Amino acid sequence: MGPDPAVAAVRLAVRRVLADMPAGSMTVVACSGGADSLALAGALAFEAPRAGLQAGGITIDHGLQDGSGARADAVVRTLADLGLDPAGSIAVTVDGEGGMENAARNARYAALDRAAGRLGAAAVLLGHTRDDQAETVLLGLARGSGARSLAGMPPVLRRSTDRGEVLYLRPLLELDRATMRRACLAMGLEPWDDPHNDDPAYTRVRVRHQALPVLEETLGPGVAEALARTARMLRDDADALDALAARAYEDLLADAFDHDDALDHDDALDHEGKGPTVAIRVDGLDELHRALRTRVLRMAAVKAGSPPGTLAAVHVDAMDRLVTAWHGQRHVDLPGGLRAFRRYGRLLVGPV
Amino acid sequence: MGPDPAVAAVRLAVRRVLADMPAGSMTVVACSGGADSLALAGALAFEAPRAGLQAGGITIDHGLQDGSGARADAVVRTLADLGLDPAGSIAVTVDGEGGMENAARNARYAALDRAAGRLGAAAVLLGHTRDDQAETVLLGLARGSGARSLAGMPPVLRRSTDRGEVLYLRPLLELDRATMRRACLAMGLEPWDDPHNDDPAYTRVRVRHQALPVLEETLGPGVAEALARTARMLRDDADALDALAARAYEDLLADAFDHDDALDHDDALDHEGKGPTVAIRVDGLDELHRALRTRVLRMAAVKAGSPPGTLAAVHVDAMDRLVTAWHGQRHVDLPGGLRAFRRYGRLLVGPV
Repeated sequence: MGPDPAVAAVRLAVRRVLADMPAGSMTVVACSGGADSLALAGALAFEAPRAGLQAGGITIDHGLQDGSGARADAVVRTLADLGLDPAGSIAVTVDGEGGMENAARNARYAALDRAAGRLGAAAVLLGHTRDDQAETVLLGLARGSGARSLAGMPPVLRRSTDRGEVLYLRPLLELDRATMRRACLAMGLEPWDDPHNDDPAYTRVRVRHQALPVLEETLGPGVAEALARTARMLRDDADALDALAARAYEDLLADAFDHDDALDHDDALDHEGKGPTVAIRVDGLDELHRALRTRVLRMAAVKAGSPPGTLAAVHVDAMDRLVTAWHGQRHVDLPGGLRAFRRYGRLLVGPV
Repeated sequence: MGPDPAVAAVRLAVRRVLADMPAGSMTVVACSGGADSLALAGALAFEAPRAGLQAGGITIDHGLQDGSGARADAVVRTLADLGLDPAGSIAVTVDGEGGMENAARNARYAALDRAAGRLGAAAVLLGHTRDDQAETVLLGLARGSGARSLAGMPPVLRRSTDRGEVLYLRPLLELDRATMRRACLAMGLEPWDDPHNDDPAYTRVRVRHQALPVLEETLGPGVAEALARTARMLRDDADALDALAARAYEDLLADAFDHDDALDHDDALDHEGKGPTVAIRVDGLDELHRALRTRVLRMAAVKAGSPPGTLAAVHVDAMDRLVTAWHGQRHVDLPGGLRAFRRYGRLLVGPV
């Protein structure tokens, strides 16, 4: 008799990502003690030695709840019992900057980056499931900022650190949370239910417990799967369009001042020393598909110093009208004390 | 004192689309008698003469409810009272093919196509609002079939008919349903509430009354707006990627048989007379971004005769593995009695 189907599913998902690891290398699982990452830890402990690989486990103590230290110790014991070596916990300080969830995530990844570097780990495995992905897509939908915000979490992510790149992998994005619970049960692992996961103060928790069930009810079953599939397709789309736009941006980049018919001397003086001014040729830009043109315009604004988080579709659309609906209009104000204007066949973005 | 702000908003939206109409031409509004298309009719009747244009109104009697004929007559009277000329109703027969909603839509557009042709109308205006758009995006999300299904309804649509092209415009996609109700009230127009709009047997009705309110509750206000914005951006993305993929497809098209190292004679005979076989060069295809490559593969399958509605991501992914993960695997079965296989540097799609 083979293993429980849920256990087999998790192991298969882990086996697939381990197939790409260098022989003898170390893979580390990030484990909160919750069902998803615990099932992942159990599968990694089983698969790694069979693939001739080393496997370790790390839990992060965010210090945000009473008894979080003892909790972390219990997870470390479980990881060690599974045979993961090293098994350890890292305590981090969460400063709350940019919201608690965001700050906790930043502190967690920074700690994992360092641990991966110290251990020389080939990869860090994360336990996000298809359900997490569906929630992420819905949260992105609420922002309404296009394909990239609907693309969810990438299955493969390379983070640059001082000590080089750290490879993060999410092998469970095609599997659901219920499978993880069943896998834990079958492996005799007792997951910890983080009370934060049921606290309706968090938007993600409301999406999980209210929005997704109602969507399943109204649109029919399989919504989480459809959302995850959507994320995959839109990530491909966004990757392609971003890459094509980056190439177009480089092709269209022009010199703002050093040109016969470019800005006159006074204009050049006006901008001197106030920060970078980016110039792109309108000729060529106006022939691009709108999806590429708006991406090129956004790149120009960001390169000139506009903060990406504040630069909105309304700004990019106004820049676009300087290109496609030109009737001699004045400048467009952009976040970061910048303005875009059109002159001598160029679109310029620079300090006010 | 100017008009009510809701009336002003609808009129402005109509004025913008009328600005592109040829002088003296006729624009027709399709009006169900519901608040959205009734407000649109009122605004068109006001704006068209001021823009030197003619304006007519049409209502479609689907014959699906008792008293629908009398209902249609009442709408025609309202349209005529507004000054729309001609104002008329067209009775259609809904055969129910592909589901009632779908069949009703097909019958409605066919009737509008014919009426527009008969009247020589420059455009037909449709009353879909931002709320309709948000519902459409959510319905597309449930299908999980990528950017195009999330792109919602286009603001501009050209339908080909026997008698030429008919231009459909949706001027209200940036305005919400509540504005239309207020505009009707302010214009003294009494909208008709179609009982179908509250029948939870329709998925769209459940999305409207259950899914969207819960999303507003969990994700915060402005979800409909975010969904509509998402639709706009993803339509741009899908347009760009589809156009780039179509160009790549043409560039990569190869001859299946007439080539030194192509299929041998027996293979050619096997396929003779069984339908089109499409061949594309793997060299070049494998260098495309995945978003473009999968679109090219989908085009190849559809051109070879695979029904687009049945051809799913799983089929396209399997075709893609023939390109990017080639290890001598056999053919991939596709809907429509087709198979894809790789031979002599080509990806071929043809009848089994």
